[in-house]
Amino acid sequence: MRATVLHRAGDVRVENVPDAAIVDATDAVIRVTRACICGSDLWPYNALKPGGPGQRIGHEAIGVVEALGKDVRTIRTGDFVIMPFAYSDGACTFCHEHLYTSCVRGGFFGASVAGAQAEAVRVPFADGTLYALKAHVDESLLGSLLTLSDVMGTGHHAAKVAEVGPGRIVAVVGDGAVGLCGVIAAKRLGAEQIILLGRHPDRTALGRAFGATDIVVERGEAAVERVRELTRGFGAHSVLECVGHGESTNTSILIARPGGHVGRVGVPQQSTMPSSQQAFYRNVTIGGGPAPVRGYIDELLPDVLEGKIEPGRVFDRVTALDGVPDGYRAMNEREAIKVMIRP
Amino acid sequence: MRATVLHRAGDVRVENVPDAAIVDATDAVIRVTRACICGSDLWPYNALKPGGPGQRIGHEAIGVVEALGKDVRTIRTGDFVIMPFAYSDGACTFCHEHLYTSCVRGGFFGASVAGAQAEAVRVPFADGTLYALKAHVDESLLGSLLTLSDVMGTGHHAAKVAEVGPGRIVAVVGDGAVGLCGVIAAKRLGAEQIILLGRHPDRTALGRAFGATDIVVERGEAAVERVRELTRGFGAHSVLECVGHGESTNTSILIARPGGHVGRVGVPQQSTMPSSQQAFYRNVTIGGGPAPVRGYIDELLPDVLEGKIEPGRVFDRVTALDGVPDGYRAMNEREAIKVMIRP
Repeated sequence: MRATVLHRAGDVRVENVPDAAIVDATDAVIRVTRACICGSDLWPYNALKPGGPGQRIGHEAIGVVEALGKDVRTIRTGDFVIMPFAYSDGACTFCHEHLYTSCVRGGFFGASVAGAQAEAVRVPFADGTLYALKAHVDESLLGSLLTLSDVMGTGHHAAKVAEVGPGRIVAVVGDGAVGLCGVIAAKRLGAEQIILLGRHPDRTALGRAFGATDIVVERGEAAVERVRELTRGFGAHSVLECVGHGESTNTSILIARPGGHVGRVGVPQQSTMPSSQQAFYRNVTIGGGPAPVRGYIDELLPDVLEGKIEPGRVFDRVTALDGVPDGYRAMNEREAIKVMIRP
Repeated sequence: MRATVLHRAGDVRVENVPDAAIVDATDAVIRVTRACICGSDLWPYNALKPGGPGQRIGHEAIGVVEALGKDVRTIRTGDFVIMPFAYSDGACTFCHEHLYTSCVRGGFFGASVAGAQAEAVRVPFADGTLYALKAHVDESLLGSLLTLSDVMGTGHHAAKVAEVGPGRIVAVVGDGAVGLCGVIAAKRLGAEQIILLGRHPDRTALGRAFGATDIVVERGEAAVERVRELTRGFGAHSVLECVGHGESTNTSILIARPGGHVGRVGVPQQSTMPSSQQAFYRNVTIGGGPAPVRGYIDELLPDVLEGKIEPGRVFDRVTALDGVPDGYRAMNEREAIKVMIRP
């Protein structure tokens, strides 16, 4: 079959690889209906050192179950499924606590198992990992369903960790697909004011369509100043960190109101966190991490099916597998927000 | 009157200073019944640079109201009061949210106003700051009441931020007075297992008396390993960081279970926080800061009055004002846990 392989920074190729196949009795193989490129894929795309075996990249997919291991109980061949970016056994302590991304036997697609930017993908622990849709789904909804495998669930996670709720002032740092989904999540959870920090006009325009009430194009100290101006000098109750850089993390902490909460979902690129003392003196709480999106589908899916939220609008480009390398280039150059793959 | 003045690292003196007096119409002056030395006083005691005017140090006191500004409404002359370590106007947005330590007109005793290791102290915003006791109080309770001005409320804050509750596994990092009060708080809130990390036998023995179930004397990686052994390999649901060093903060993050919470109350001595990525990948939430102890007195006071908790046992030495310099030395050399001052 054909699959995407990242060989080194800037060198991503679509190649012939062995067909996805059942290895363990709890596996499924799904034929990929749609996959996509994630902002987090750009970290290795820009930094992967040469010399390794190549990374079978991609962690977001929806598809149809094609084969099943003999111990799979609830998933059926032919099921149309959402594949969260992390697999999880559904049985361990952390799965029972709905922290699927800390499953003791779990892992990540595109890292500990082969990735989803491919014709098919092997899914460990099919029962614990996959979410089967019961009803027929209109093709127009595929994009939004695909976001439930990562970016919409991740934006929602940031919002939940940041304790977004009715009447809250929310700041979303980063106008990538996750930040934009964070705007949707904040609006959906009842935020009163949603300040989006970003400087790409196409992205912030979509942010406004999703519910952002204010756009802050400044960065660094100027951004902090601007957010404070917009919030009676206090800052935001809830800040969604959707980038992962040291500077964006710093901004996130400094624009949080005393007693406020920062929800981090941008993959942190630095080993230390800035402004530890500023966070402390203002009792700012910092949480977040890999979103347990498996647990959020129940809550978000009805709104997608009813068209109440349209996170699929973050996809502004669609390509076949052959176009994946150019998709990476386009996202890396901020020419595209998020690229959908139709294998 | 006589008061404590820190002139530079290691040079703390008891001197004659102008009497505490009403300055603003919302002030009170209280005659100090008991004050004490705080672990956080040791930071400037070890580091204050020479050349300034001297720091009128001390932020914990109980006492009797001696004089009132004309606009004070609820506090009366003769009231026996607890003086939280921060003053607060009781009227601003943050006071209404019970985050008294972020009061927009507030500040800290021993920093923005003169300190409490003295015969008397001026208290700004008496109505918002002071907590008047209604009933006569037995002298045996004075120590425990004094801890409500800081260390008991601070340990409780760490526990609340760390989401301690029934059935939780709690780790308390640091065996100083705050850590020991953290043990009391964890026990009081229903923790199932309380692991105290400390290496001073007199302190950890008191920790056991307060409810610690396990003592970890190791530090660094060995401490992380030991806590994991004690917690089925997972770590603690709730970690109370009661030191403020980089190493103790790092340990706190690494011994938190995935999805766990760290409540920081040790004053951070470094501008950055370690192990940002480890916290992220395990969805560990880090909160805390200066404890809004004013808001916790309602909850903690009945347990003190009924003798259900005895945080006053952290005081293992009592001195008159003249003995304060030696009290600093004794605490700094870990010869005393916490020194009470009877002016």
